[in-house]
Amino acid sequence: MKRTSRDIRTAHRYEVLRQVIAASPASRQGLASATGLSLATVATLVGELLDLRMISEVGFEDSAGGRPRGLVAVNASGGALIGVDIAETYVHVELFDLALTVLARADEEMRPGESQPERVVGVVAAAIASVVARAGVAPDRVLGVGVSVPGQVDRDTGVAEYAPNLDWHDVPLLDLLAEHTPYPLHLDNPLRACVVAELWFGAARGHEDAVVVNLGTGVGAGLALGGGLHRGVSNSAGEWGHTTLVLNGRLCHCGNHGCVETYVGAPGIMQNLHELSPSSALLHPGNQTATIDALARAAAEHDPVALKTVQDTARYLGAGIADLINLLNPEVVVLSSWVASRLGEPLLDEVRRVVSRHALGRPLAATGIVLSPIATDPVCLGAATFALEGALRTVGQRQETVRGTAPARSRTAPPS
Amino acid sequence: MKRTSRDIRTAHRYEVLRQVIAASPASRQGLASATGLSLATVATLVGELLDLRMISEVGFEDSAGGRPRGLVAVNASGGALIGVDIAETYVHVELFDLALTVLARADEEMRPGESQPERVVGVVAAAIASVVARAGVAPDRVLGVGVSVPGQVDRDTGVAEYAPNLDWHDVPLLDLLAEHTPYPLHLDNPLRACVVAELWFGAARGHEDAVVVNLGTGVGAGLALGGGLHRGVSNSAGEWGHTTLVLNGRLCHCGNHGCVETYVGAPGIMQNLHELSPSSALLHPGNQTATIDALARAAAEHDPVALKTVQDTARYLGAGIADLINLLNPEVVVLSSWVASRLGEPLLDEVRRVVSRHALGRPLAATGIVLSPIATDPVCLGAATFALEGALRTVGQRQETVRGTAPARSRTAPPS
Ligand SMILES: [Zn+2]
Ligand SMILES: [Zn+2]
Repeated sequence: MKRTSRDIRTAHRYEVLRQVIAASPASRQGLASATGLSLATVATLVGELLDLRMISEVGFEDSAGGRPRGLVAVNASGGALIGVDIAETYVHVELFDLALTVLARADEEMRPGESQPERVVGVVAAAIASVVARAGVAPDRVLGVGVSVPGQVDRDTGVAEYAPNLDWHDVPLLDLLAEHTPYPLHLDNPLRACVVAELWFGAARGHEDAVVVNLGTGVGAGLALGGGLHRGVSNSAGEWGHTTLVLNGRLCHCGNHGCVETYVGAPGIMQNLHELSPSSALLHPGNQTATIDALARAAAEHDPVALKTVQDTARYLGAGIADLINLLNPEVVVLSSWVASRLGEPLLDEVRRVVSRHALGRPLAATGIVLSPIATDPVCLGAATFALEGALRTVGQRQETVRGTAPARSRTAPPS
Repeated sequence: MKRTSRDIRTAHRYEVLRQVIAASPASRQGLASATGLSLATVATLVGELLDLRMISEVGFEDSAGGRPRGLVAVNASGGALIGVDIAETYVHVELFDLALTVLARADEEMRPGESQPERVVGVVAAAIASVVARAGVAPDRVLGVGVSVPGQVDRDTGVAEYAPNLDWHDVPLLDLLAEHTPYPLHLDNPLRACVVAELWFGAARGHEDAVVVNLGTGVGAGLALGGGLHRGVSNSAGEWGHTTLVLNGRLCHCGNHGCVETYVGAPGIMQNLHELSPSSALLHPGNQTATIDALARAAAEHDPVALKTVQDTARYLGAGIADLINLLNPEVVVLSSWVASRLGEPLLDEVRRVVSRHALGRPLAATGIVLSPIATDPVCLGAATFALEGALRTVGQRQETVRGTAPARSRTAPPS
């Protein structure tokens, strides 16, 4: 499938806004050199973004010998974006201004057995209403809501096709949510949300090729290749958690044996701990969060069982990451999501050690492995940027419609 | 590392020439819609390629209601390109015209123990002289020579850093070769050569995301992502052969255990056969080519040992390919190189069966698995296109030099 001129134009518009958000204020000349686009193209796109009030003129900078250059900056109050992170053990909802600063947040725990779609939709809709009210934002200024659900999703139809850890199959999530919330809705998954968060604000900024390894209940590897998110042909790239690491190994819920996820996802880590010390006090059966928290605290205190569990986990994780480095030759591998942030440096150190034994010399020398530097929930942040991207695409569609081409394809709720 | 404007311009020039070669004759309007570039950009690039005599004006086509559109086509005799495929068991050298049609070919076998760099360089240099003479091409019309060596290579310095199956370490191959041959030289490896061959002329044509699985003595996965070759940050992407498939499995020459290559490379397949039937008459110890040929013939005659060997090989290969499909979500997976072409349909059928059991539903549904349709050596073809790309980059450098920017970085031999 070739990208159309419209796709390319949307990508360029997005790239310019991303640069303005990353480094305001900016001149058109600076944006042209940062994006590789021509000055004429940048000037046109800046004009569109000014018309949309997403950015504004904020003054001038001197240019050696030439006339002063106009500067633009993101217009933070020009709109609001909402990011929703539906995970196996929680729902997080955050409301952002256009500079992607959090204005309000709602966190809900989800206990096992509480993840029926209708129930989750109710929780999400209430949290959205709550953050809008608490941020004091007028509803007509909410440009969109990005929703992240683990597993395989269809962005065009808004259906969560397969979320094994939630036991969801073909859930028409956006249709259900549209009954309770009036804003344009955009569906994607946490792998891709985290990549975008790292590309805009985190450890992948300024890198062409990065891998964001997501360690939560499930496991995946979001890919930034050639400076942008790699979605694959049907938007399902990144399903690294179901890579065979141990032929005939542990049974995975996907039906295969020996998947990476069964060794380094939160339940897999619990099993690593259980195999090492079945009666360990660190083990909280049925409670992933409590167990990972206990492991993290004990590892910080040099508890030998905790350290050995981290080592065992890193042996699998490091072998898998070495494979990603050999295959993709990225500049940076980012460890993200809640399990990575809680196990932190002890896990990172062990992973680096294992990777340096397993990876080939040339790709290894070119790669750094780091923890995500994003302090808030990267999935909410990334989901909000998908909503922003959706809003920018809608602009393109309005323009294209005038010029008589194909109608809108992206899934949005009816206008409120 | 951001791409510079010069990189982008070279890529666009290359993309336009690729379209002309793929579908001559072409109008500027047709090239603009096929590449997604603006008509103005295409017109400029077409002008450059006309100046270089790489393409020529060949007439006009009617355009409904408008004035006739000028057509351009590749100028086949406007230059010659040479592709060199240095493999573990042979050296192939082919000379192409600018339409990438083979005009002359030289094949040399390499027996074990004959792969010392000086010896190989002598063979390659003689073969290059031979194809130039036999094609009757004037030496000043040879635009360049692309050389492919397995393993990790440094394109900028022309050094073959690590070719384990040849037992080469830091061989300054292009410097050695430049002593014997006067043409501009470009080094890369077979994974990337095969990707480019498939993108231009094979099963990846018109696809955004493709994986080319190379099955020879060594094994790798060349990647086409976003419509172009994915090199990675230090040009070593694709080292899929050293992916851990069996934790603590067979020892690999890379130092790890259980690498894909130890099960599906030619020596790995010989071991699969040996484990199944140690005294099989199909086994030609020390001779990969003879053994794979014998296996292919016997499988075609439904020999049960041969079929079981293919099945065992496909079990490993299919699991590994399913992992690639889950991770990258490509439109097509191409099985390439000599082992794949000899084992052919029986291997393909088994691989498809295994993949359909292992891959996740959504990426599986979007992917086809095929044998490479390229009848000649795809590595020579791809290496020749690297030489073409190098020639186009040189154009860019000359222009840039006039405008005062950075000097040439690509490795070329002194002018003849
Ligand atoms: Zn699995
Ligand atoms: Zn290996």
